[in-house]
Amino acid sequence: MESYMIYMPLLMAALGLLYMFIKKSWVLKQDAGDGKMKEISDYIYEGALAFLKAEYKLLAIFVVITSILLVVVSQVVDTTHWLIVIAFIFGAVFSAYAGNIGMKIATKTNVRTTQAARTSLPNALKISFGGGTVMGLGVAGLAVLGLTAFFIIFYHQFMNGEWAAAEFEGVMKTPQELMTIVLETLAGFSLGAESIALFARVGGGIYTKAADVGADLVGKVEAGIPEDDPRNPATIADNVGDNVGDVAGMGADLFGSYVATVLAAMVLGNYVIKDMGGNIVNEGFGGIGPILLPMAIAGVGIIISVIGTMLVKIKSNDAKEAQVMGALNIGNWTSIVLVAAACFGLCMWMLPDTMQMEFFGEGLIEISSMNVFFATLVGLVVGAVISSVTEYYTGLGKSPILKIVQQSSTGAGTNIIAGLATGMISTFPSVLLFAGAIWASYAFAGFYGVALAASAMMATTAMQLAIDAFGPIADNAGGIAEMSEQDPIVRERTDILDSVGNTTAATGKGFAIASAALTSLALFAAYVTFTGIDGINIFKAPVLAMLFVGGMVPVVFSALAMNAVGKAAMEMVEEVRRQFRDIPGIMEGTGKPEYDKCVDISTKASLKEMMLPGLLTIGFPLLIAFVPMIFGMDHLAIAEMLGGYMAGVTVSGVLWAIFQNNAGGAWDNAKKSFEAGVEINGKMTYKGSEAHKAAVTGDTVGDPFKDTSGPSMNILIKLTCLIGLVIAPILGGHVDGQASVIKQEIEQEVVQNNEETSSIYKNLDIQKSVDAETGIVTAKVTYQSSANGATITKSHKYVGTEEQVEAKIKALNQEVINFK
Amino acid sequence: MESYMIYMPLLMAALGLLYMFIKKSWVLKQDAGDGKMKEISDYIYEGALAFLKAEYKLLAIFVVITSILLVVVSQVVDTTHWLIVIAFIFGAVFSAYAGNIGMKIATKTNVRTTQAARTSLPNALKISFGGGTVMGLGVAGLAVLGLTAFFIIFYHQFMNGEWAAAEFEGVMKTPQELMTIVLETLAGFSLGAESIALFARVGGGIYTKAADVGADLVGKVEAGIPEDDPRNPATIADNVGDNVGDVAGMGADLFGSYVATVLAAMVLGNYVIKDMGGNIVNEGFGGIGPILLPMAIAGVGIIISVIGTMLVKIKSNDAKEAQVMGALNIGNWTSIVLVAAACFGLCMWMLPDTMQMEFFGEGLIEISSMNVFFATLVGLVVGAVISSVTEYYTGLGKSPILKIVQQSSTGAGTNIIAGLATGMISTFPSVLLFAGAIWASYAFAGFYGVALAASAMMATTAMQLAIDAFGPIADNAGGIAEMSEQDPIVRERTDILDSVGNTTAATGKGFAIASAALTSLALFAAYVTFTGIDGINIFKAPVLAMLFVGGMVPVVFSALAMNAVGKAAMEMVEEVRRQFRDIPGIMEGTGKPEYDKCVDISTKASLKEMMLPGLLTIGFPLLIAFVPMIFGMDHLAIAEMLGGYMAGVTVSGVLWAIFQNNAGGAWDNAKKSFEAGVEINGKMTYKGSEAHKAAVTGDTVGDPFKDTSGPSMNILIKLTCLIGLVIAPILGGHVDGQASVIKQEIEQEVVQNNEETSSIYKNLDIQKSVDAETGIVTAKVTYQSSANGATITKSHKYVGTEEQVEAKIKALNQEVINFK
Repeated sequence: MESYMIYMPLLMAALGLLYMFIKKSWVLKQDAGDGKMKEISDYIYEGALAFLKAEYKLLAIFVVITSILLVVVSQVVDTTHWLIVIAFIFGAVFSAYAGNIGMKIATKTNVRTTQAARTSLPNALKISFGGGTVMGLGVAGLAVLGLTAFFIIFYHQFMNGEWAAAEFEGVMKTPQELMTIVLETLAGFSLGAESIALFARVGGGIYTKAADVGADLVGKVEAGIPEDDPRNPATIADNVGDNVGDVAGMGADLFGSYVATVLAAMVLGNYVIKDMGGNIVNEGFGGIGPILLPMAIAGVGIIISVIGTMLVKIKSNDAKEAQVMGALNIGNWTSIVLVAAACFGLCMWMLPDTMQMEFFGEGLIEISSMNVFFATLVGLVVGAVISSVTEYYTGLGKSPILKIVQQSSTGAGTNIIAGLATGMISTFPSVLLFAGAIWASYAFAGFYGVALAASAMMATTAMQLAIDAFGPIADNAGGIAEMSEQDPIVRERTDILDSVGNTTAATGKGFAIASAALTSLALFAAYVTFTGIDGINIFKAPVLAMLFVGGMVPVVFSALAMNAVGKAAMEMVEEVRRQFRDIPGIMEGTGKPEYDKCVDISTKASLKEMMLPGLLTIGFPLLIAFVPMIFGMDHLAIAEMLGGYMAGVTVSGVLWAIFQNNAGGAWDNAKKSFEAGVEINGKMTYKGSEAHKAAVTGDTVGDPFKDTSGPSMNILIKLTCLIGLVIAPILGGHVDGQASVIKQEIEQEVVQNNEETSSIYKNLDIQKSVDAETGIVTAKVTYQSSANGATITKSHKYVGTEEQVEAKIKALNQEVINFK
Repeated sequence: MESYMIYMPLLMAALGLLYMFIKKSWVLKQDAGDGKMKEISDYIYEGALAFLKAEYKLLAIFVVITSILLVVVSQVVDTTHWLIVIAFIFGAVFSAYAGNIGMKIATKTNVRTTQAARTSLPNALKISFGGGTVMGLGVAGLAVLGLTAFFIIFYHQFMNGEWAAAEFEGVMKTPQELMTIVLETLAGFSLGAESIALFARVGGGIYTKAADVGADLVGKVEAGIPEDDPRNPATIADNVGDNVGDVAGMGADLFGSYVATVLAAMVLGNYVIKDMGGNIVNEGFGGIGPILLPMAIAGVGIIISVIGTMLVKIKSNDAKEAQVMGALNIGNWTSIVLVAAACFGLCMWMLPDTMQMEFFGEGLIEISSMNVFFATLVGLVVGAVISSVTEYYTGLGKSPILKIVQQSSTGAGTNIIAGLATGMISTFPSVLLFAGAIWASYAFAGFYGVALAASAMMATTAMQLAIDAFGPIADNAGGIAEMSEQDPIVRERTDILDSVGNTTAATGKGFAIASAALTSLALFAAYVTFTGIDGINIFKAPVLAMLFVGGMVPVVFSALAMNAVGKAAMEMVEEVRRQFRDIPGIMEGTGKPEYDKCVDISTKASLKEMMLPGLLTIGFPLLIAFVPMIFGMDHLAIAEMLGGYMAGVTVSGVLWAIFQNNAGGAWDNAKKSFEAGVEINGKMTYKGSEAHKAAVTGDTVGDPFKDTSGPSMNILIKLTCLIGLVIAPILGGHVDGQASVIKQEIEQEVVQNNEETSSIYKNLDIQKSVDAETGIVTAKVTYQSSANGATITKSHKYVGTEEQVEAKIKALNQEVINFK
């Protein structure tokens, strides 16, 4: 059983994907409604596909370029294997495919939800949440499947599937080192996934807001036609944008987090084994329990998520928001509790009862498997609490939103100040929560604990994504109901789902930030161990300087993303104006707008405009690593500088992510508050009032905050840390004490006197020891040598395989003249 | 000559203050104009005094409480002397007095500038800049005077005015340690100054914006009377606010920076001496050249600033902005070049040709005095370049401003996005500049180099403040010209000065940020050396957690400051409404508004509202230091955590300072662009247009950014690092290898055999050495002792004064039975 555990996550992922396909075909079998509904839905579907197609083209170019770079790296750096390129390509393809599944199902589910809502709210929830489930399981299933499969392949490729010393490219390596090579190669998969996330999240964010602003500016303001009017050529692009940003972007973001978290935990698991003296074979699981544990948690998490999604249902056709929210909560909380139980079982089963872990500055400390379990609990708590915090600062009817509403009465200026202040204040509990989580999970089980906290939190990713993707599906369903002029009861039902979806969208963003933050920290820790530096000391000025530079990058990135929205929106405006001018009968509804042209503009503009922020993200860490290298700076010093940069990006990025997401969410809901009417200075105030106009202005500012620059921060910090991790072997690499080649150390060289003149060896002494587990031989050879009138005592140490060491001693023997 | 150098800065400061008093009486002798002008001016003067009076009250309470705390600390911690309380009180009083001088002269100069502008622009410049000069010299003179005087007093009190070992509270100390005590006590002066800066900058920032917003909301919007209308009860408060915020706030900020920078450089100078083996007496300057150097630069800087201010003049009555700006630039650049020359001379003269400095992780490195000079050049370059960067992002007619103007045409939303993006983008060159400066000055001369870079930059503080304070004076002069209905030519002339003043205000803010950033870094370095920790390793999770928390504090502080403005403004609105309602004939101009009530409201509200942000600033570092202490955490671990917190505050604070100041400045000038008219989409657009209204909304958001929360960041980061420095001795203190008490170390204890049973000593051997410079005696005493059947070889080391060591040896001799 124990030795098959390595295949368990693979099986779980396959089961999850199987369930996903069953669910998908069930959703697709549902009634897609009448002609008008179908037509609108088809336009959205085609627009989404057009974006995916264009994205894949750009993607292909990017993947080819990066692959070539990686091939070069793998040739230059001993410990980087060319298989990293294959892993990278598959990471990219899997991530893209997961996005594809999500986009397709979301654009197919919306119209079916509308159709279901004509008769039954429970059914509408079942279908819309079913679509979300397909998305969630697609992402999580592919993530675990890809990561596990590649791990197994590399584990067999480099280590013959066992924890033992072996030859690698003609050099004897310890199992420790071999596993490091396995994981470094596996990092390619994570890098591929996160690169696609950059395209999906940043490009998607620009896309959705460019289409939104473009459609509104010309359609609503200039032409005076209502929102979502089919005569507006940018309408479809706008609806596509919702899916591109909220569904595909979020999916790619969490796909990346999921993979990176598990990878980082595995890297740190390898160092746990090292701290325990190099092997824990007698504990079962092929001696790699701590490495397998994060994968096992991820695998079990998929099945638990399936169970969770099954619990989401309502019975009454008259249910309100509270009941729908309650159904989602039951599913969510059940899966969290089950993950906690699973973590307990897995930690107890897969880990030794006590482990030694190296704590920086404190030496080896005994950690029980129970401590590791406590660390996973920390992660689960963070995931739950951050959602509540986000909900508090952005939720309808909560006091921060009510304050913003009040401030709207004195104009847009005060509304915006209030929104900014809300976003800024919201960093207080969020950062204290993160800081507490870092501290606690580290206290429980070192950085392995931090990484496992992240892993446990991410275990429910499929469930989180299902809840998350359900929102835009319900939103689209409502739009289709409106456009196809359904009975008001249909819109009422979709509005209930949409309202709940708005809340889950906000809390989902909180979850995504928390996952990005913990993932980055885990990657950061993995980076430090990979490079072999002894910490990152910000009392060294170059490191401190890089901390500043790193802190600046998220701010500039956000500004670039915001400006990109402006530019892309302007291109859209030009195109809509042109169509209104050139297509005869378009305003009368007799001429057909060229929706695809607008989709194309938004697609191209978004992909073009994300180049500069993308370049900033990828370019800075490369510059910091390679420019000083050209000037011959010490590699470990560079590694420390890069670590300072990574810390700066992470701290600043997390802050700006929270700030921008929550400010944007708060403005949005402050505006929405006017729909039901709000009391300002004792007077009920509604849509169309001056205060509402001020709130709309606030929402305009908040849109790029919450949908473009804010969510991009997640990718920025994770990708930065991943790039660092991939560069790590070049900078430091394997300086952790054990031999990577046959090592020949001169231990002593003592000049005694200078009486003799001929070259002569004497007093040869050989002490040899063999490590029973790894087969690595250590030989200490001492002899005296008299040359040029001096007698020198030399002591050499050889480390390598039996054969290598024997060959060395034999060669030495031939030189030695033994006096006795 | 050399031994009198310690008194030079004192003399320079006195000369500067003398010149200040001459200039002041000259300004006051100028014609203050006719009745109406005088009346308005008097109201502003009285309002300003009212604020100062209220501030001093609160101040007194704060000083008393903090003094009591410091007394407690000085009783608990051995190395903290009670004189720190005296230094603290004087620091607070000097800073307050400097603010007093500035406020008084600014509110007296404005009306005289208006009067002069009736006949002559050159004269108007001379008077307004004269007022600025008084302010600048007052601040710089008092800063140097106070710091130098206390240094001399403590140097004589604790070290008898010479670099030698001496007894301190009954314990023998090395000169190194004694100097550390001197500087730690001196830190009280800096803490006092910076605490007042907190009141002045934050309180002033809230005051000015509360009055501004309150006056506008009721006056302009509700009552429909123009800005600066004497019928508006809040008008005077509004004008007072300009002085409170821009003059007193900026003055206190730079006073604090000046003192803290010089102090930090002195602390690091002491460590340079240590790295050189404890003394460089043969080099002159009483052996404390590296400690005196920063004071000398500050002293010379005052005289250079006087020279610089003398060069600021124009001749033609028809001069335009360019000529006035040119005159200021001549003065500014001359003083910068002169400071560079002075730094060269002083570095060559006062420092040994080569010094050893400890570089973290690289060991002792030889540094030439020329290197130190290069470090000072780095500081001067940063000061000059940051002003240009700020000018670029906020200057009228520059491309970022033009972009914001263009974006105003599509509404307030896009205007605000553009302004936010501009502020965010502006962090790019600024942070790269700071990072480069840290790197370069550190590479030249370690953290001593960083501190001296800051010192050199701050040397022209008097000149910078003169240029800076001239702005609000000219602004007020224009207001008085308008209110007293002068000939349009008068307003034209003051407008020229005002326009230049707007530019210098923006660049002055850049200078203040740069000074705060470099000062904080220097304090940070001084903190690390004070605590004796070996760096700050963010790979330790608690340190990393504190880096996060530190990064969050500036964001939350900013939000609190912004909310405070909103609350205070609302109180003002209520009062103005009450007066309009209750005072008969107020709108007809027959009833007199109660200006003092509004002044009082603004004063009280601002001082009340700054409590929470103030508490955040002071409370967090204390919590981080003392809560873990209660739980028995290792002091050095706490010191490292606090260091992580300080770094987080500094990095995040600098970013948010740049972001908020530049965004606010950019919005302000985008709005002002409409006054002269701007071209939008090929059409000239003016005040009153929709685009202008959008720009006004942007400016409303920018006001608290640039005048309240943005500038407060400077104080936040400096005060945080200063509090750290004052706590440092409690956390670490003096672990730098030399003895602080007569030290008795057991060096060896070897058990040989156990043949004898009686207690017996033999083979006594004493090796004694005396340090020629410090008089410290080191004795190594070896002997054998046979007790309880074992023979033990013991080796003790004693370090102390001649008498102490002799007494120890004598006592030992009496016990010893010498066999030979």
